Amino acid sequence: MSIEQIAANKSFGGWQNRFKHTASSLNCEMNFSIYLPPQVEDGIKVPVLYFLSGLTCNDENFAQKAAAQRIAAELGIAIVTPDTSPRGDGVTDDKDAAYDLGLGAGFYVNATQQPWAKHYQMYDYIVGELPKLIEQNFPVTDKKSISGHSMGGHGALSIGLKNPQDYASISAFSPICNPINCPWGQKAFENYLGADKTTWQAYDASRLIAIAEHKLPMMVELGLDDQFLEEQLGIDAFISAAKQNQYDVNIAQHKGYDHSYFFIASFIEAHLRFHAKYLA
Amino acid sequence: MSIEQIAANKSFGGWQNRFKHTASSLNCEMNFSIYLPPQVEDGIKVPVLYFLSGLTCNDENFAQKAAAQRIAAELGIAIVTPDTSPRGDGVTDDKDAAYDLGLGAGFYVNATQQPWAKHYQMYDYIVGELPKLIEQNFPVTDKKSISGHSMGGHGALSIGLKNPQDYASISAFSPICNPINCPWGQKAFENYLGADKTTWQAYDASRLIAIAEHKLPMMVELGLDDQFLEEQLGIDAFISAAKQNQYDVNIAQHKGYDHSYFFIASFIEAHLRFHAKYLA
Repeated sequence: MSIEQIAANKSFGGWQNRFKHTASSLNCEMNFSIYLPPQVEDGIKVPVLYFLSGLTCNDENFAQKAAAQRIAAELGIAIVTPDTSPRGDGVTDDKDAAYDLGLGAGFYVNATQQPWAKHYQMYDYIVGELPKLIEQNFPVTDKKSISGHSMGGHGALSIGLKNPQDYASISAFSPICNPINCPWGQKAFENYLGADKTTWQAYDASRLIAIAEHKLPMMVELGLDDQFLEEQLGIDAFISAAKQNQYDVNIAQHKGYDHSYFFIASFIEAHLRFHAKYLA
Repeated sequence: MSIEQIAANKSFGGWQNRFKHTASSLNCEMNFSIYLPPQVEDGIKVPVLYFLSGLTCNDENFAQKAAAQRIAAELGIAIVTPDTSPRGDGVTDDKDAAYDLGLGAGFYVNATQQPWAKHYQMYDYIVGELPKLIEQNFPVTDKKSISGHSMGGHGALSIGLKNPQDYASISAFSPICNPINCPWGQKAFENYLGADKTTWQAYDASRLIAIAEHKLPMMVELGLDDQFLEEQLGIDAFISAAKQNQYDVNIAQHKGYDHSYFFIASFIEAHLRFHAKYLA
């Protein structure tokens, strides 16, 4: 599993790096970004936060816009930001190049339907292949947490809830909490998973939190002026499912904030300090 | 002088806003961004930092990538980020659309040559029209400081040195300090100002600091792995001219850092705290 460095920028005493590699789970070449805090230059192994981005993003948006490096440098946490779908000329895109299906919109599931199944195996990539690659190639411990935004918030909640043994804590900004009941999720799941809706439930955070036994620490950040809050995010179903299962989720709601990276940047510090408690 | 809002994102309790207006000095429509810290919602008028961006940027790069809002919110400073050239279909661009001439490359001068002179009057826009517009439309005091990056560092140094009565302090990241002696500056000045090099000196920071009488507080941040340091920035000429005139400039040099916004984000806090001392 070889990786090739394609960018390196010093940032807050550490390095914001970018690599490419051939992803066997996705059958294509992928880029990822990784922030390595200054502690690694002293020979210290650091824990990792995986941050999954939203629709239309790639591995660079969070690195450039979330202002997370200052706090990651202070806390000694590496941050890995994967791309949001398989990529490359050979990878199927939506026939109309819609922003919410195909490239940039992998939805962190394993597609079972054609023409998607060959490449769109983002769940396996994030849960299995990528962390293994990171642990083989960087000075990191095996402690990891997961966070994400919007579609990536759905990814972080669903992956964290399905694999509690792998993560120390879970968080999300503006997550799609109940994809089986919103337009974005229904479109993606129908394409990637097919018409049988029973297969969709395995990736629905509101279903997963209702049956979770191992209750990882979890926080969710919401902007109350988020333009997608009502139609797409499904937070009420999520809160009610969590309550039913006595899963204590710290949900913070903020007046005036929207769905943008300006919102993420305003509250990323609280999330990094939250994860640091459990990654120690 | 009317302005029209085109975006607003809540950020660290304040607002990252974007406006458009018709710029009479530039004969075109322009966008600018302004961060208004939370203090203005309590009816407090705040001072303003003008931040001039570099080649290829527009008014949004600094707002999205420099991570300045957290500190501006704490200190109660508004930050105005103008575009880097006149814009629009009617505005002359370089015939080969080079990144270092024409659109995105106004160099903060008043062009005297054709076909540039009609629109490329960025010096007048930044010194005169824009601050007047800001003071008429936003809850700001008349206290202002100026900073910038690369081509915008040249803009901040030259404009600040030429107009010490207008600013409280000056700073720059990776500035083009001696444009009359580097490829970027020579190409721009020859096009915008013509072949007579005596006219170039009025915009050269190393010339201007040699004759400055009113010595404003000034700091300059440099990355020692900046890929443009040797060929384009001309810091040695600037340091020697400042020394000759006994102008005390705080120049900080950092190993490993490059020319990118990751460098700016790492050190913007020190610049905002520096300006805040003189804007109080």
